Parts: sequence; C-alpha cells; structure tokens
Amino acid sequence: MSNLNTFIQANQPLIEQQLESMINEIQAPSQLKEAMLYSLKAGGKRIRPLYTLAVLKELNVKNEDAIKVASTIEMIHTYSLIHDDLPSMDNDDLRRGKPTNHKVFGEALAILAGDALVTLAFGIIARLKNLDAEQKVFLIDRLSFASGAEGMVGGQVLDILGEGKTLSLEELEEVHINKTGALLLFSIIAGGIIAKANEEVMDALRQYAFHIGLAFQIQDDILDIEGTSEQLGKTAGKDILSEKNTYPSILTMAGAKEQLKRQYDLATEALNQVNLNDGLLIELANYITKRSK
Amino acid sequence: MSNLNTFIQANQPLIEQQLESMINEIQAPSQLKEAMLYSLKAGGKRIRPLYTLAVLKELNVKNEDAIKVASTIEMIHTYSLIHDDLPSMDNDDLRRGKPTNHKVFGEALAILAGDALVTLAFGIIARLKNLDAEQKVFLIDRLSFASGAEGMVGGQVLDILGEGKTLSLEELEEVHINKTGALLLFSIIAGGIIAKANEEVMDALRQYAFHIGLAFQIQDDILDIEGTSEQLGKTAGKDILSEKNTYPSILTMAGAKEQLKRQYDLATEALNQVNLNDGLLIELANYITKRSK
Repeated sequence: MSNLNTFIQANQPLIEQQLESMINEIQAPSQLKEAMLYSLKAGGKRIRPLYTLAVLKELNVKNEDAIKVASTIEMIHTYSLIHDDLPSMDNDDLRRGKPTNHKVFGEALAILAGDALVTLAFGIIARLKNLDAEQKVFLIDRLSFASGAEGMVGGQVLDILGEGKTLSLEELEEVHINKTGALLLFSIIAGGIIAKANEEVMDALRQYAFHIGLAFQIQDDILDIEGTSEQLGKTAGKDILSEKNTYPSILTMAGAKEQLKRQYDLATEALNQVNLNDGLLIELANYITKRSK
Repeated sequence: MSNLNTFIQANQPLIEQQLESMINEIQAPSQLKEAMLYSLKAGGKRIRPLYTLAVLKELNVKNEDAIKVASTIEMIHTYSLIHDDLPSMDNDDLRRGKPTNHKVFGEALAILAGDALVTLAFGIIARLKNLDAEQKVFLIDRLSFASGAEGMVGGQVLDILGEGKTLSLEELEEVHINKTGALLLFSIIAGGIIAKANEEVMDALRQYAFHIGLAFQIQDDILDIEGTSEQLGKTAGKDILSEKNTYPSILTMAGAKEQLKRQYDLATEALNQVNLNDGLLIELANYITKRSK
C-alpha cells in the first residue's frame, strides 16, 4: 500500500469522528444538529482536511489542534455544498448518491444548517488550546478570505452569472480560482500556519496549492464527461445538459487534458524548490489528477 | 437634546460610512457587493453597533477599531434578516419599507449576499490593527457563539419549529434569548472586551444585556399590535395573521407590558452594581422599551 493510502486510511476516520463530536457537543435544537450532521456525514473524499494534515506530516510537525482546524475546513466545504444544491442555485436532488440536505430537511433548515456550519467553523478555531492567538487570528483571517466574497462565495456568484454565457479561459479560471481553488488553497496553507513554516515554504505551498486547485477542477470537468453517474455518485453529463462552461467545452477534451498536465507540472515544480517533492504532497497531486470520482 | 440623541446623531453616520467602506474595499463581483450593500444601507436603528460604542463611551475607553467591530455586528444582523426574509423562511416582501433582498436580487444572490456578510465579519475582526490577538480571538469566539447554532441560528430554527404550536412562556423566551438576544448581548459585551473591562463589569454588562434583549423583543411584539405599518416600515399585525407566538398572545397585552417593565427593572439593577446607572446605557434601555418603531 502506498504512503498515501496508509495516510488516508489512518486519517479519514479521525476526521469523521472529529466532525461528529464537534456537532454533538454543541447546545442547539436537535433538528438543526441532525441537518448539520447529515451533510457532514455524507462521505466525500475529505481532500481538504487531508491536505492540512499532510502538510503538517511533511513538515514533521505535530499539533493536536491540526485535526480540528482541518475539520472546520470540511464544515465550510459542506456548508457551501448545502447552499449550492438549493433549488434557487444548482437545484440538485442528489449529492454523493444521497438526497441533498433540502430534500430531506426542507429549504429553511438546509439554509440554516449551512449558516450554522460556517459560523461554527470560526468559533472552533478561536477556541483552540494548542495554537497561540496570533496563529488563530491568521487562520481566521485567511479562512474568511478564502470562503467569503473574495473567494468561494464570490466564485459561486461568478458561476451563476456565467450560466448561459460563453466564458473565455481566463473567465473560467477566475470562477474556479475563487469557487473551489481558494478553500483548497487555504487547507494547504493552514498546515503551514499551524506548523509555523517559514516564508519560503509558505510561498511554495501557495504556488503548489494554486495549481493543484486548478488541476482538481479540470479533472472534475473531465470526469463529468468521461465518468459514469455510478462512479461519481451524482448525475454525470450534467455540465453538458446545463450548458455549463467547462475546460473541455472551451479547450476540447484534448486541450483540457493538456492543461491538466500543465497545472500538475507547475504544482510539483513548486514543491521542488523546498524539497517537499518526495512525499504525500506529490502523491496527493497524482491522486487528484488521476482519480475517477 | 438628550445625551442619547447627541450620541446617536454623532455615531449613526459613522456606522453607515464604515459599513459602506468595508464593502467597497473588498475585491468581489459587483453584483454581490451591490446586494450586500443594498441591505446594509436599508436603514434600521443600528442599535447593536450603537450599543458597542455606548459601552466604550461609558467605560471611558477609546479605540479606533471599536466602530469596525460594531459594524461587523450590523453585518451579522443584516445577513440574518436577508436569510429570514427568504421565501422558504418568513417569506417577507418588505423590510424597513423597502423590497427585501431576494425581491430585488433573486433568491440565489440573496442567500450568497448573506453568506458573504457573515464570513466577512469574522475576517474583518481578525484583521484589526488596534486590538491584540487575544482580544480578537475572544471577540470571534463570542460572536460565533452568539450568531450560530447555539445562538441566533438556533433561535431561528426554534422559531420555525414553533410555528402553528402554542408555546409556553419559557419556550418563547428560549426562542428570543437565542434568536435576537444573543447577538444584542454580544454587541454589549463586545464593548467590554474592547475596553478590557474587569470581570465585575463584564458580569453586569451580561446581566443588563440579557434582560434588555428580552425587553427589546417584548416591545417588538407589542408594537406589532399597537403600531401602524407606516411607523414600523413593515406590515403591522403580521404576527396575529400568521398565528405567531408572542408575549401578548401568551400573557395578554397587560401581562406583556408588565413583563416588559420587569425586564427593564432587572436590566437597570445590573447597572447599579457597577455605577453605570446614570448614562447612555440607562437612556438606551428607556429608548428600547418606549420606542414606537
């Protein structure tokens, strides 16, 4: 078994447990907690929290709060999925093969479960015991930036506004850099902040994260065409049906695959600069660009 | 002119300016910024930010960041109004006499404008220059608590679940303590955190805030019956039409007014303990319990 598989199999269950206990310990209406937990427990690759933990492992730093920070990123990711799936947004009935949050709990509770998750994430970081106040403030600053109007939420707005229009490659990249790239980037630099990495390492992590974020999205677009609904746990081919702008639609499939290779190369070059090129970060780059779901 | 009027007239415009510049300076899609600003600029009493500033004034502490913290609370309040007004929640077309956010920008953008506001609030606090990291972490911790599942969002869930049921006084209070009380309480203790007030003062502020929060809601319920739509800037009598649980519906109007007086007395007694009983906090208590809108 590869290092990465060992790492994933060791850490995924810890992330699941962490997410569950973070919700269980809050004092809130049980229906709300149930709605929050439903989407948190709906599976997924947990790629963002795994990235935070992988960076710490590569930098040889241990911190008990790392898994908590990692899990708050999954909370933010999950809240964004709940809101994106709403009827007024992407109107999705299925997510990871299961009914979406609003299909089970109704729209009002789905919106509020999302609101509760994003709000809780910031509070959990503020209350951590094994990071100093400066680290917590740095994490909160960057998490807010990555997930708000200047990042994820802004990207979702661009995505909605771009529907039915033909975007240029630059415009499509702007959507993705914000909508999915910013939070993935945060998950990687969060590891650096927790490890108190030096500026050179932080810069390399940022570059790696930027390019791997784009690679992630290109592969998503490719899979929507080449994957099956069963593999993906969601309706395949939906991008074409909804006339969405994707890398294959703008660049052709061959062009999209070339672009994927280019982003992968740029990501791994960044790792070379700081000698982080023989471990989990390379393996994760391979995993992301070669995955089938 | 009373001290309070002078104070409000001096500070309300500063809060308006602060809110506007906080949105203007972010890099985000213009449509999103427009939707955020639309609701932030829709008026309102600005009671929460005024409270933060009033506490600092009463404690004789000046801090340039106080108005910024105060304004983030108004952002959180505004986001909650945008989401509460949505068709799947209270389905309100008017707010403060103007069309609600989703009526102007559509549901998707209204949800995302709310998401962006709550996320931005935490980031702004994390990036302040005139508070130390411990103060910022304390503020973020308490703001997350007040506005999330254990506070405002939880209260909104209880409110929705209570529709069509007859609540006891205790159940109604639980709704209000969470839905509106928690954020109002935060706005008051935020002043104490910024001023680095001692524990005795913090305790008195908490007690005052708890009772004034209930008084605020009781007066809201009374005004829904005794006020006019023109005064309120929203449809009067809506609580009765929608068979909402209110203080008058549970206690009769006379009982509600008695309860209002009781909460007012408890709030002002807390101020007596720390000699804060002759200034803006008393005047604000009077203002809240005697207002006509």
